[in-house]
Amino acid sequence: MSQDTKVAGLLIFPGLTQLDMTGPYEVLARLPGWRAELVARTMDPVRTDRGLTLLPMVDFAHAPQFDLLVVPGGPGTDDLLLDEETVAFVRRQGEAAAHIFGICTGSLLLGAAGLLRGKRAGGHWSARDLLARFGATVSDARMTVDGKVYTAGGVTSGIDMALRVAADLAGEDVARQIQLLIEYDPEPPFRSGTPFVAPPHILERAKQAGAPRREMRERLTAEAAARLRERA
Amino acid sequence: MSQDTKVAGLLIFPGLTQLDMTGPYEVLARLPGWRAELVARTMDPVRTDRGLTLLPMVDFAHAPQFDLLVVPGGPGTDDLLLDEETVAFVRRQGEAAAHIFGICTGSLLLGAAGLLRGKRAGGHWSARDLLARFGATVSDARMTVDGKVYTAGGVTSGIDMALRVAADLAGEDVARQIQLLIEYDPEPPFRSGTPFVAPPHILERAKQAGAPRREMRERLTAEAAARLRERA
Repeated sequence: MSQDTKVAGLLIFPGLTQLDMTGPYEVLARLPGWRAELVARTMDPVRTDRGLTLLPMVDFAHAPQFDLLVVPGGPGTDDLLLDEETVAFVRRQGEAAAHIFGICTGSLLLGAAGLLRGKRAGGHWSARDLLARFGATVSDARMTVDGKVYTAGGVTSGIDMALRVAADLAGEDVARQIQLLIEYDPEPPFRSGTPFVAPPHILERAKQAGAPRREMRERLTAEAAARLRERA
Repeated sequence: MSQDTKVAGLLIFPGLTQLDMTGPYEVLARLPGWRAELVARTMDPVRTDRGLTLLPMVDFAHAPQFDLLVVPGGPGTDDLLLDEETVAFVRRQGEAAAHIFGICTGSLLLGAAGLLRGKRAGGHWSARDLLARFGATVSDARMTVDGKVYTAGGVTSGIDMALRVAADLAGEDVARQIQLLIEYDPEPPFRSGTPFVAPPHILERAKQAGAPRREMRERLTAEAAARLRERA
């Protein structure tokens, strides 16, 4: 590995929604001149929200400074919003990284780390309004870029955004070649991928199922935002 | 876990292209009444083609009969085409499963197991023509369904197809709700996801880079097809 190799660090943690991370990983791990590392607090196996288990490649203590910091989401994000060690790691890495890339509710963690103050940012449709608590201007777009901060909507939007990040880091031709290799010419069999297009009864069901999580998330976000204000 | 719970078994192996599997996993693991299991020859950690490492949940010897068998692809597929133990496992599981779902070059392994004879089937654009060696009628479509056999094109096409599989197994409303939760309303930033739409110089580069792999794959496929004929 050449000394010039740049490093993308993808945060993993218990309760991660794995596709938030594995989608972007598939794109970023193909970038010439880069390597992609899964970073976790410890080297213990990381069980994601539905059971799939990943091995970290490096822990917080041994992580190099990343050139690109990637923070995916999932229910596990909520547990991290008040976790001082993780918030401090994300802050330290994110402040020095040339680029930051949040997916889904991973944006909340970027917010808790103070990285979204005065920035336009988005996230999963069920939670992105909460980014305002951290001083962000909320975006409902699937992809939002503000300076060095890239944020994507829920889960699969990380794939679209990873191609945009790839183009910015390595050029459009590289991004297009990766798109061809992963045959990314999507044909969703249904039209139900956002609250704006989903049938109303589907949206209602999803909201009902997510209500307890939403309530907890509001509480944790408020507390994380209070801590951020105290720190400022 | 109720006795009525159905099981989706997703094959993992060294050299897997992880998104072939993790995309469909994200959909299938959300199906009510189902559980999704990563199955491997042994319980050793499985290193995928670009370094991401997964833990199996069950090994061949302890796997239940799956109701849905999922076979992803990647460079590691090539090593399995002549691996008697894996081919036999896929044949045994696939013959008895109610549904079979191949993604990317995973279709080649389904073919080597004799599961595609007389079926229409597709796979990654760089390899799907080879399915003819196993008696399949080759499809260039992103998604191909023939009876109980679902095959998808390269890598990301597994997400589209997983939603179709989800609808067939659990109803369209369930599939639509999953689509909303994973916010699957794709917006690829470029149009380069198939050989038919990619800029010619991008396609040419991808083919050149893949030429050694293609040559090896042709050889292995020919040998696997010969073995299949001997068996018949």
